[in-house]
Amino acid sequence: MYKLGDSIVYTLYGESHAEYIGGYLEGIPKGMKIDIEQINKDLALRKPSAGIGTPRKEPDEVEFLSGLDNGKATGEKIHYRIKNTNTDSSKYDIFNRTPRPGHADLPALIKFPGHKIKGGNQFSGRLTVSVVVAGSIARQFIAQYGINVGAFTRSIGNVRDEEERTFEDTVRSKDNPTRAATKELDSLMNREVLEASAEEDSVGGVVECITTGLPIGFGGTWFGSLDAEIARAVFAIPACKGVEFGRGFELTKMKGSESNDPFYYENGVRLRTNNMGGILGGMSDGAPMVFRAAFKPTPSIGKEQDTIDLKTKSDAKVVVKGRHDPCIVPRAVVVVESVTCLVIADEIKKEKLAK
Amino acid sequence: MYKLGDSIVYTLYGESHAEYIGGYLEGIPKGMKIDIEQINKDLALRKPSAGIGTPRKEPDEVEFLSGLDNGKATGEKIHYRIKNTNTDSSKYDIFNRTPRPGHADLPALIKFPGHKIKGGNQFSGRLTVSVVVAGSIARQFIAQYGINVGAFTRSIGNVRDEEERTFEDTVRSKDNPTRAATKELDSLMNREVLEASAEEDSVGGVVECITTGLPIGFGGTWFGSLDAEIARAVFAIPACKGVEFGRGFELTKMKGSESNDPFYYENGVRLRTNNMGGILGGMSDGAPMVFRAAFKPTPSIGKEQDTIDLKTKSDAKVVVKGRHDPCIVPRAVVVVESVTCLVIADEIKKEKLAK
Amino acid sequence: MYKLGDSIVYTLYGESHAEYIGGYLEGIPKGMKIDIEQINKDLALRKPSAGIGTPRKEPDEVEFLSGLDNGKATGEKIHYRIKNTNTDSSKYDIFNRTPRPGHADLPALIKFPGHKIKGGNQFSGRLTVSVVVAGSIARQFIAQYGINVGAFTRSIGNVRDEEERTFEDTVRSKDNPTRAATKELDSLMNREVLEASAEEDSVGGVVECITTGLPIGFGGTWFGSLDAEIARAVFAIPACKGVEFGRGFELTKMKGSESNDPFYYENGVRLRTNNMGGILGGMSDGAPMVFRAAFKPTPSIGKEQDTIDLKTKSDAKVVVKGRHDPCIVPRAVVVVESVTCLVIADEIKKEKLAK
Amino acid sequence: MYKLGDSIVYTLYGESHAEYIGGYLEGIPKGMKIDIEQINKDLALRKPSAGIGTPRKEPDEVEFLSGLDNGKATGEKIHYRIKNTNTDSSKYDIFNRTPRPGHADLPALIKFPGHKIKGGNQFSGRLTVSVVVAGSIARQFIAQYGINVGAFTRSIGNVRDEEERTFEDTVRSKDNPTRAATKELDSLMNREVLEASAEEDSVGGVVECITTGLPIGFGGTWFGSLDAEIARAVFAIPACKGVEFGRGFELTKMKGSESNDPFYYENGVRLRTNNMGGILGGMSDGAPMVFRAAFKPTPSIGKEQDTIDLKTKSDAKVVVKGRHDPCIVPRAVVVVESVTCLVIADEIKKEKLAK
Repeated sequence: MYKLGDSIVYTLYGESHAEYIGGYLEGIPKGMKIDIEQINKDLALRKPSAGIGTPRKEPDEVEFLSGLDNGKATGEKIHYRIKNTNTDSSKYDIFNRTPRPGHADLPALIKFPGHKIKGGNQFSGRLTVSVVVAGSIARQFIAQYGINVGAFTRSIGNVRDEEERTFEDTVRSKDNPTRAATKELDSLMNREVLEASAEEDSVGGVVECITTGLPIGFGGTWFGSLDAEIARAVFAIPACKGVEFGRGFELTKMKGSESNDPFYYENGVRLRTNNMGGILGGMSDGAPMVFRAAFKPTPSIGKEQDTIDLKTKSDAKVVVKGRHDPCIVPRAVVVVESVTCLVIADEIKKEKLAK
Repeated sequence: MYKLGDSIVYTLYGESHAEYIGGYLEGIPKGMKIDIEQINKDLALRKPSAGIGTPRKEPDEVEFLSGLDNGKATGEKIHYRIKNTNTDSSKYDIFNRTPRPGHADLPALIKFPGHKIKGGNQFSGRLTVSVVVAGSIARQFIAQYGINVGAFTRSIGNVRDEEERTFEDTVRSKDNPTRAATKELDSLMNREVLEASAEEDSVGGVVECITTGLPIGFGGTWFGSLDAEIARAVFAIPACKGVEFGRGFELTKMKGSESNDPFYYENGVRLRTNNMGGILGGMSDGAPMVFRAAFKPTPSIGKEQDTIDLKTKSDAKVVVKGRHDPCIVPRAVVVVESVTCLVIADEIKKEKLAK
Repeated sequence: MYKLGDSIVYTLYGESHAEYIGGYLEGIPKGMKIDIEQINKDLALRKPSAGIGTPRKEPDEVEFLSGLDNGKATGEKIHYRIKNTNTDSSKYDIFNRTPRPGHADLPALIKFPGHKIKGGNQFSGRLTVSVVVAGSIARQFIAQYGINVGAFTRSIGNVRDEEERTFEDTVRSKDNPTRAATKELDSLMNREVLEASAEEDSVGGVVECITTGLPIGFGGTWFGSLDAEIARAVFAIPACKGVEFGRGFELTKMKGSESNDPFYYENGVRLRTNNMGGILGGMSDGAPMVFRAAFKPTPSIGKEQDTIDLKTKSDAKVVVKGRHDPCIVPRAVVVVESVTCLVIADEIKKEKLAK
Repeated sequence: MYKLGDSIVYTLYGESHAEYIGGYLEGIPKGMKIDIEQINKDLALRKPSAGIGTPRKEPDEVEFLSGLDNGKATGEKIHYRIKNTNTDSSKYDIFNRTPRPGHADLPALIKFPGHKIKGGNQFSGRLTVSVVVAGSIARQFIAQYGINVGAFTRSIGNVRDEEERTFEDTVRSKDNPTRAATKELDSLMNREVLEASAEEDSVGGVVECITTGLPIGFGGTWFGSLDAEIARAVFAIPACKGVEFGRGFELTKMKGSESNDPFYYENGVRLRTNNMGGILGGMSDGAPMVFRAAFKPTPSIGKEQDTIDLKTKSDAKVVVKGRHDPCIVPRAVVVVESVTCLVIADEIKKEKLAK
């Protein structure tokens, strides 16, 4: 399903090697100012960082086909697209016989007869370029309501940031190529990536996302709970393997007397701790919403791997040549922000009149 | 949102202290045999275990209002309900002034003017009784396709099962009150619960769910990915704070050469490891689907807690008296199974003709 | 499907002879005043008129279970129900063998094994009592935006009102038992109904609905066009067999130079005629939205009819005894208004920020 | 909304003067043979007939980007597009000031600031080229279930076919440029169009659609009723102003004893008449499903028309030059068939397991 949201509706299209990757964004209010510079900044955050990212270069210039006029939303669906420049699929032919471990190749080839591996097809992380454009517009939409979303790299490989972080840290992290919160951590994480890269290997990590400004009660119930909707959207990002809110899995080792966040009064209701990550009963409790997403190591690695040959039905080897990110975590940071902005924008519109 | 699924559509209704809790299940094929004994068995698994669960007793007898005839589905929507017997809300009045930490009280009271706390209202874990009935029917539906879903307790508090487990282990776990995989672990986990209980406290834990029989390629793409849909449904269960597939957060510390599951050939494609939890690109890769869900400690505890008095706008104390589960993990096991069955059943119907 | 709308979401439940008929209405903004008197007035318009309606009496008292506090919406879903008092199904048993022509009996019995005819089951016009409650709340919601919906009886049998009518006429029609626009027409239509009734027969008619205050451009595109959404909701009303906007089928005999509504300027854009019924390209053109709905004669008639005996698989006769409306058109008037209010309310919320 | 259906999901994209018009069709089962010749035949039926259609020529060659392999569906979404060759919008500039009566120009210009009239933009009948491609695939899908959909021209202007027609008549109608059921009617209707054309005017008409093979009980309930879903999809076709099932508006003048279709037994249940158009309670009653759609005269006419000048805010005149269809009814026939096939295909998949 390429659609996210019910009232601010985002539709994704394109494939890794298609002529274009694009999207529709419906529901952005007429007259809202849309800052193209902001979109370009967000897109720049998705680009590979020098040294630790893929040397593959895509200009990623967004073309708007409808919905924008003189820098403002017209109320029509916003249709945009980005031209793909790297669309040569010939070097991927081999994977039609010997699917890449860790990729969607095997299920796609078995599920869809005649499927041809072209980059990552519709499963490619390349499609997140469309997510970031829509997310950046959603970010501008929710900012009008005083809501801000920021993410940073909590860990790469065995280097883990042990400090509690704030929204301001997420802003600062954007100056660091790894999106770590500090220069020191950036340098350590950078080394972790370069070491993996030197071994033709890859490494994973954790992105943490902090949202401020959600009014108490913001969110839905049951299958429309705010955390449930966000988890769905974050798991849709390629390579995501886990999502936890607040202290998440750690909470399972705590006592209720430790995990419950006590309330106190100081110019309004406040919480002494934020173990719950700002969510109670699927709704905001007024504390910043905090969640973490686990990203696996990039599956494309230069090392030889065991696979099978679908033609001869026997064991085989495969090497994934070419220019791949040894770690996608730094680039995933803005993508996690983007889907979060989209979910919140949709929910704002759903709740709009209820406030 | 009280609705899950698009083609096998489950709608939940009721509140903690409403006359009835019930549900609609649409899309179950005409003529399918529905085993009421199976439903009652699943409901029994949701009941509190002697010693470690709440002494509150609800008979939980399901009444079917439509959709069933002579033990078979008629093709009409299946409408069922369970009578609530404990519906006295008087002892909850105090929480309208002094909301319970860890509960939905605070956001609900602030979001909905005039909201009256009655048990857990629509946010109550009590509503999972409806989820289990629908899930049990979905379980019978997916069994026809050779798909089986089983869950067990991976950890409670600091007691963690360190073994790799199989679907068979999940079956055996049902003989143990804590749903641990072995008697030894059950005894250790049991003690963990009793200790918390003795201190008027509570404890959390991790449920692990294993699904066998999914055909390679089963699942959707992007926002309809199988893992994304399951994460959404699992996060909808009250008290869930995290979901991870395969080795989940641990993957972030691995190298790609370790985390990628290599393929080999032996009467079909196989995987040497299952680090991905059976999911590649949002689809089944043929290995069992494995995920874990983190449940926080029960927020209702007998210990005095800090809260605020919404009337006087000042700090206050609250004690949650009454009979509550010191640990909801054992009861959550069948609920996790149930939502998983529902998501898979919906997806089967979506994919039905595509097979 | 028992659900209408995406952002103001109405869910219908119940059956002709169930304990309750009810509904959920989600999305009504917190704090909106809800006038119960207005709801009761709308329900009264749905009741059979003395003389020309069924003598079956239902008190139709609405009980609100959630979402209302001190006459205001709380922002929670509004859950309400109406107790059925006539739930004796015994006299319907015969129709399980000899289905009633013009009713859903035959398809329901063949589609759903074990289906038992109880009144009209889920297909019954009785369920429109729930539609009217939700519609009445939606009516109050859209009134805040200056939008008013009124309907009246355009024709019964061969008596047809040939005048062009306005919203004010629809208000006046409510004083007439047949909902005709004038006393004279009321008297003629009344006779038409009584004549059919005297012959143990029934008669159909046309309801016309006029909506004022829609801003130019209100509505969606393609499958979300305003006329398309309204047509769907109106066809969902039992016994509706046709819907036309503006001059509808008559337009097919006109020339473009006659049918196009010319624009002119007088304190804003205006239209000289309203052949299009206020809709261009699926959106409001600023003229009142006008459509008509055709209702077939009540299928329940006292006359003997040809049917089949499903048990003996042979021809049979059936007589539908009891107290039925010889004409449902007067009661359908407020139901047509109700679904129109619901569709517009949903669309307002979708467009809210786009204005 | 550019999406139709829930399980066979059709998404429309493009604009009158965009580079491409296209669509996605999701849910077509893997391995289903797709006959491109059939699609081209259906597209040819949408092309203007010599003499009575617009001389504007579009080659309408379909390019498939995904979902097809060796003439079979792969199970992936079917993505296709058609290149627009006429995309010069310069002659439409004038309509930004003086909107065309009968078109979406006025509401679009007022609703969407900065909107530029380019042909019919997203409201254009040109987009039905995408509908026909998807509909043709849906037609092939439903044919596997023995269901066939055919439409023909019931009337153009004042020439009306008074005979009862069958599915076979709809097949024969395709040999006639006007899609009339007989040569005689074709010649009369043809004259009606040419007369309007000679006067720089246009004319409307009625399309009738007949569907055979629907099993008894096929369809949904309430807002998902088969007739409701079809009405929605047909009203989405540009220029449609009315939809009626069976004898439709005529039923309102009948008595129940005349309108109810009596059942009889002859190798199964049969109906003596088909006044209901094959629909009872939103479901098929086993008789052919018959409905009619009213199409207004083409709004583009060469005659001078009254409009307003949006810049000077005063009355103005407009002449719509260029090559337009004096009657779109013949071309609408296959479009009505197409949306009907799409709705039925979606419903088949929803009901599939329930049979």
